Amino acid sequence: MTDSLNALLDALRPHFADRLLTSDAAREHHGSGESHLAPQWPDAVVMVQSTQEVSDVLRICTKHCVPVIPFGAGSSIEGQIHAPHGGISIDLSAMDAILSVKGEDMDCTVQCGVTRQALNEHLRATGLFFPVDLGAHATLGGMAATRASGTTTVRYGSMRDLVLGLTVVMPDGAIIKTGGRARKSSAGYDLTRLMIGSEGTLGIITELTLRLFGIPEASQTAMCSFVSIEDATQTVVMALQCGLCLNRIELADGLQMKAINSYSKSDLPEHPTLWIELTGSNAAVEHDMAVLKDLAGDASRFDCAETAEAASRLWRIRHDALYAARALRPGIKGISTDVCVPISQLPACISAILKVIATTSILAPLVGHVGDGNFHLVLLYDPADESETREAQHINKSLVEMAIEMGGTCTGEHGVGLGKKAYLPAEHGPALDVMARIKRALDPENIMNPGKIFDL
Amino acid sequence: MTDSLNALLDALRPHFADRLLTSDAAREHHGSGESHLAPQWPDAVVMVQSTQEVSDVLRICTKHCVPVIPFGAGSSIEGQIHAPHGGISIDLSAMDAILSVKGEDMDCTVQCGVTRQALNEHLRATGLFFPVDLGAHATLGGMAATRASGTTTVRYGSMRDLVLGLTVVMPDGAIIKTGGRARKSSAGYDLTRLMIGSEGTLGIITELTLRLFGIPEASQTAMCSFVSIEDATQTVVMALQCGLCLNRIELADGLQMKAINSYSKSDLPEHPTLWIELTGSNAAVEHDMAVLKDLAGDASRFDCAETAEAASRLWRIRHDALYAARALRPGIKGISTDVCVPISQLPACISAILKVIATTSILAPLVGHVGDGNFHLVLLYDPADESETREAQHINKSLVEMAIEMGGTCTGEHGVGLGKKAYLPAEHGPALDVMARIKRALDPENIMNPGKIFDL
Repeated sequence: MTDSLNALLDALRPHFADRLLTSDAAREHHGSGESHLAPQWPDAVVMVQSTQEVSDVLRICTKHCVPVIPFGAGSSIEGQIHAPHGGISIDLSAMDAILSVKGEDMDCTVQCGVTRQALNEHLRATGLFFPVDLGAHATLGGMAATRASGTTTVRYGSMRDLVLGLTVVMPDGAIIKTGGRARKSSAGYDLTRLMIGSEGTLGIITELTLRLFGIPEASQTAMCSFVSIEDATQTVVMALQCGLCLNRIELADGLQMKAINSYSKSDLPEHPTLWIELTGSNAAVEHDMAVLKDLAGDASRFDCAETAEAASRLWRIRHDALYAARALRPGIKGISTDVCVPISQLPACISAILKVIATTSILAPLVGHVGDGNFHLVLLYDPADESETREAQHINKSLVEMAIEMGGTCTGEHGVGLGKKAYLPAEHGPALDVMARIKRALDPENIMNPGKIFDL
Repeated sequence: MTDSLNALLDALRPHFADRLLTSDAAREHHGSGESHLAPQWPDAVVMVQSTQEVSDVLRICTKHCVPVIPFGAGSSIEGQIHAPHGGISIDLSAMDAILSVKGEDMDCTVQCGVTRQALNEHLRATGLFFPVDLGAHATLGGMAATRASGTTTVRYGSMRDLVLGLTVVMPDGAIIKTGGRARKSSAGYDLTRLMIGSEGTLGIITELTLRLFGIPEASQTAMCSFVSIEDATQTVVMALQCGLCLNRIELADGLQMKAINSYSKSDLPEHPTLWIELTGSNAAVEHDMAVLKDLAGDASRFDCAETAEAASRLWRIRHDALYAARALRPGIKGISTDVCVPISQLPACISAILKVIATTSILAPLVGHVGDGNFHLVLLYDPADESETREAQHINKSLVEMAIEMGGTCTGEHGVGLGKKAYLPAEHGPALDVMARIKRALDPENIMNPGKIFDL
């Protein structure tokens, strides 16, 4: 441990006492997360309870030039919580208060450690809900920091769209409020959007004001199989152009359906499959489901769930897709790819990457948020096997290069962290230099989650 | 004219020839706009035709440390195009090419000088449209630069939400691409949103990739009168919570309705009035209009337009509101205020400002995008009359202070320019310093629209 780190811990200890952790267990937990990347432990963990405490820690870390890594639920998968340069992991999970819910304004203000599940539980009696729906059990602060999205983006947008304002602690300890409770504003630079997706490299989000929505009166789900991914995508394009009241549009490929059948002991067609949920008034949902059935004329099978329970069963299958995929190779976690392309490019992108995969030994089932052009392959490789590791990395790299070539992005919703850093020059070109200038201006000592998004 | 300016003009002349204008007429046109502020002319105007030309001009202006002011349609109303420090106005109106329309992806790429009207004209045969709907005949580049919104924000969002990517020329002439054509991305800082609303102070937007939408199958409009603004607002809150397929929800107060009757020779109730447009499938619109009628039980009058022509007539009345307002005092243009508050605060905010107005001699009819909590008072004062000018400024200042106190913003959609600069410290507190640090990092010579948003 360096002198500056020791001095830092001495400075933190009087205030934080047993909330300053240096045990191996705490450091391991805070340096691993859900990533496929090898763990990189922080030197210590501090369990904060307030924005003021975050400010105190940052001020002291700046003084001692020690890195700071924000930690929410630890569910990030590109190494966002890793500590490649050591330093202090600031665990924000105890900042889990729901500060206000304003029904008339359809907004709420929460601390960063609140999970979306906890928020929706809290909102249950109000008839309102917060729609961003991820696979992970993530905190809202972490979701904002990685610009998370999930299955309902096609209807409600992502964290980018649904955050009205933030409280952010800057590296020097300054506490700023960005945005506000107005639905829109043209008053100066959009610091809210700058902080969303900055992955803790510019400041630490401690509070969020979020838009809420009324729970729709009605909901219907259909599951439909297609001979080809082109046919499935074409149906989605038409449904989007018609402005149907789509809430989720999820895709799985034949291999993923095979994995699902094996995992769920089901007998679904092992072809490209769409799950489509419509929500709105009863009248709108009834009408749009009939239109959808027409549009999906190429479907080899079209099942509309007759009851809410049947719909839940269909969505359970979709939500279990990752577990089903992993069960194809028990004990193997895999890399989840995350490219997002213009929807017209989706069939070509998927078809090209499946050809690459066919030249390897890797199993790679596919699920996607097809309305957004975002899909995930789970690359089931054994990290202990060098050849498989090389193959998996080759697939991931080929896919990203292809997606960027098609006008897409290396990451639709997982963020950059350590895992996607290498691809940003190709994706952003000279814009990456503008990002780096902003980073240097706001974090001149480079203490905020250093090594994430880019190396300076 | 200073030496550096002369040297700059000498450097520009060989390339731009008669597209470099120094006539009084050109300078006056480019230094006035639609603002109530006194004109401030640039020293010269250059009519650019390409991103590369913008880059050339910026590189040369940086070299000579001469200010640059981007100019689109000249429709900004807070002095965004004024030249308080002189310099070169870059007129982008000739960059009006629609570069691509991708029907499957529901996006398009345009040059910055394309107006929203020209874009929608171009899209007519496609069944798609771009929804941001302002009063002004503005360019899409200017609309992005001021984070414009308008009547359909409640349904589709503002320019903030509908721009997928930008081409931006930075002060040193570097041409960057932000965002892309993917519907979402978590790949690094959101430079697109940073540029949107930056009012030409960080770079010049030369191309935009925009989201498009399918034209809804059906549309219905209702106009309803209420005894009080509270009753009108309460109806809107309930309609929002129910998730009705609202496309526009516009409010006028009694004085504005009086102005409309006088201007349009109509006989409408001179009470707070809502225009509500529902769009979607026939089934959804029919159903939701019935629900709306129930929700508007407190309305003293509820007229649903029976035909498309009747609906157009109702919207014509709304669109003419500004002319009707000005006709209350012929020859007087007025200041348009622009606060935006949480919708629950709207009745209190309006009632409090009407009390302030009642202590003055100023006529101030009101219209508002009530679904967003944004409203405009036209303060009809004679700028030649010192006492009236003081009163109008007092009203504007009182209103902004009240809105900020209520968790709102000094500008919902017009931007800061010169006119709202004084209010940003109260609205943003220490966050304003973070904005200034970004400005200094990206425009170290302060040549980009200097004096707008803040003084450095």
